[in-house]
Amino acid sequence: VEGADASGFGLANLAFGAVRRSDEAPRPAVRVGDWALDLAALADAGALRVPGLPAGTFANDTLNPFLALGREVWDGVRARLVALLRAEGGEPRLRDDRGLRHAALAALSDVETVLPISVGDYVDFFSSLEHATNAGRIFRPDAEPLAPNWRRLPVGYHGRAATVVVSGTPVRRPQGLRAPAGDEREPTFGPERRLDVELELAFVTGDGPPLGTPIEAAAAWEHIFGFVLVNDWSAREIQRLESQPLGPFLGKSFATSMSAWIVPARALEPLLVTGVDQRPAPADHLRVPEPRALDLDLRLGLSPGGGAGETVISRVSSRGLYWSPAQQLAHAASNGARVRAGDLFASGTVSGSEPGSYGCLLELSWGGRDPIALPGGRERTFLCDRDTVTLRGSGRRPDGALVELGEVTGTVLDAGAGAGGRPAGGSR
Amino acid sequence: VEGADASGFGLANLAFGAVRRSDEAPRPAVRVGDWALDLAALADAGALRVPGLPAGTFANDTLNPFLALGREVWDGVRARLVALLRAEGGEPRLRDDRGLRHAALAALSDVETVLPISVGDYVDFFSSLEHATNAGRIFRPDAEPLAPNWRRLPVGYHGRAATVVVSGTPVRRPQGLRAPAGDEREPTFGPERRLDVELELAFVTGDGPPLGTPIEAAAAWEHIFGFVLVNDWSAREIQRLESQPLGPFLGKSFATSMSAWIVPARALEPLLVTGVDQRPAPADHLRVPEPRALDLDLRLGLSPGGGAGETVISRVSSRGLYWSPAQQLAHAASNGARVRAGDLFASGTVSGSEPGSYGCLLELSWGGRDPIALPGGRERTFLCDRDTVTLRGSGRRPDGALVELGEVTGTVLDAGAGAGGRPAGGSR
Repeated sequence: VEGADASGFGLANLAFGAVRRSDEAPRPAVRVGDWALDLAALADAGALRVPGLPAGTFANDTLNPFLALGREVWDGVRARLVALLRAEGGEPRLRDDRGLRHAALAALSDVETVLPISVGDYVDFFSSLEHATNAGRIFRPDAEPLAPNWRRLPVGYHGRAATVVVSGTPVRRPQGLRAPAGDEREPTFGPERRLDVELELAFVTGDGPPLGTPIEAAAAWEHIFGFVLVNDWSAREIQRLESQPLGPFLGKSFATSMSAWIVPARALEPLLVTGVDQRPAPADHLRVPEPRALDLDLRLGLSPGGGAGETVISRVSSRGLYWSPAQQLAHAASNGARVRAGDLFASGTVSGSEPGSYGCLLELSWGGRDPIALPGGRERTFLCDRDTVTLRGSGRRPDGALVELGEVTGTVLDAGAGAGGRPAGGSR
Repeated sequence: VEGADASGFGLANLAFGAVRRSDEAPRPAVRVGDWALDLAALADAGALRVPGLPAGTFANDTLNPFLALGREVWDGVRARLVALLRAEGGEPRLRDDRGLRHAALAALSDVETVLPISVGDYVDFFSSLEHATNAGRIFRPDAEPLAPNWRRLPVGYHGRAATVVVSGTPVRRPQGLRAPAGDEREPTFGPERRLDVELELAFVTGDGPPLGTPIEAAAAWEHIFGFVLVNDWSAREIQRLESQPLGPFLGKSFATSMSAWIVPARALEPLLVTGVDQRPAPADHLRVPEPRALDLDLRLGLSPGGGAGETVISRVSSRGLYWSPAQQLAHAASNGARVRAGDLFASGTVSGSEPGSYGCLLELSWGGRDPIALPGGRERTFLCDRDTVTLRGSGRRPDGALVELGEVTGTVLDAGAGAGGRPAGGSR
């Protein structure tokens, strides 16, 4: 497929998703450049015979049955796809069979991308030292910014699986009980005034061992199917009021957006680099092999409502994350918790050490104190209605291949009819 | 069915579950005394025709498709079952058709009860004022026991749906990084030494409105399909180390046990009573109609390993819960979070104001300080391996009918081969 490699969605990537053509049920697909390759159509044509892959695996509206098959089958399908798609030395089947090409390939502009997995459980970590430190300074200015547990284990919590949505889904500004602001003495119910985003790197798993059996640290990476970007939309006033002592709840559960395309872990292995030094040394259940960190460039773009175009307001590499994906997974399963095919684990906000590398508006505006300048004299502390946020990420492998993560975009809708209180949004 | 009414699982109850006969797939069933009535068999025989109930709804291994149909269909099926089962004035169909009786009725001793729902999201609240106050005193002795938000909103968090198990499932003692104990200076990894239980009342929902649309407080009760007991097993050392600032994670996610039988909300409506006074007055989104509290007697039984028999170590009524089920649900959906058929919402530990009414060992032993005396000179602070815990609950309606909740029982397994550290369990 011409131009696919340059797009970051070429043979080196082969990202998995699910697409709907017209009124049909969604079907699993692989992205090749600006095309979606229908996996059910390929399988129906007998072009996807792989040991351990049952017939009908792709005759589903999500990837979950495929994810449940595990690493060997994932690798087998990947190898088959490479053989079918390779320009030279590959199998001529897809190239020569016009009928199959027509049945299996659809332009992305002709299909709707849908949530490619049924999310079993969604866990969100807090893996960036820089983000955890900044959040502590802003939320708890009188205390040590980092809790004593932070360097001992990847702090995390469970989010709401039902409200994970695919890139492109608009996000309604939530209402809720908000911590007092300005001259208010009491919490008030109304539209969130400090609506924020969080730039996160996340992974989707296959099936883990039975309940009661941990995943060994050394094996954790092999349970990861692939990676997505996640925008963990956050309502800071709601979060601030509710979080003691059981953590975030409604401040996060109104929407979490993920990429439509899942980049296989295998495609990203050439981008693994040695992780940051960890002191004290992690406990045994967190000792994963090096290289453990993914070297991906992540970007946070903001388009203010009204069409002034996008400004990239943050750039950061995921290689600086203190706790790596394999450590996150090994920790989450270390108590015997069950991990299922289609579980989603997100890193928490990825922030670097420079202001231009912070992954959320809370940090970029330092709790609303320092507005972020945008072109045309606009500025933002938190999100206004009709603002669009887009996360992007990519890496260039040592072999020169560009691998692009699926983008995550979403536009803020107003809180809706009947939403009382002041006009929403903290900035002009 | 003889003796059914006296068992608390009679016509006034009609609790729903799922059972497996021999090697067959599980099927939805209704409990009548010590019998399971196979709903798919009834439907196949044409005995369960109800407007809005599609054919095949019960040809599933969970109740989720039925739960998705909503209140009118739930009520319709309930009315049909009453007509079929009533001793006098009912339909003679089930009584007279020996073949149907044989196909549809199985003794509970001949079937295996399985988890009756696929849990979408699991939320755990903190709704008991007495429990929240006691937990604050024990965990944070130097601070106000109750956070300032507690009387404003039902504090809660998301648990792990994948580790919800049905009553009877053994529970493996988790390992994890534990807060320092005794002469330890650093956290250590090993079997949890303060394994606890939490006695909770929980509900299962039908489908809520689309993402972005709250559930109105006045309508919340109608979204509740039915009630179960939940044992929210808790690892107190793991929980203590990990919970700042994002709340409990691995200290809870190793196992959560729920009843095999879900008692319909309709069966419990005669047990609704006026809730405790709430000061300050709740925000509008939490103003639900009275009577809002369920008057159920809950009991916590402990059988120490080795077969000394069960001692009821706590008795408490759910009517004292500060935040009621409808308030919990209205709050959880107030930000537009999606609620799906099969979601599970638990109250948090139910405790009363007397020591013999506390719903967890943390409170009953006051943080391990005061051992709980058991017959034969035994005592416990936290759970030992092979201990069995059983939760029970029931209410007597004004019409004299006894309604029993499904019991929840579970036995502690040791942490397993390779689990280092000291012998587990804090008591002899």
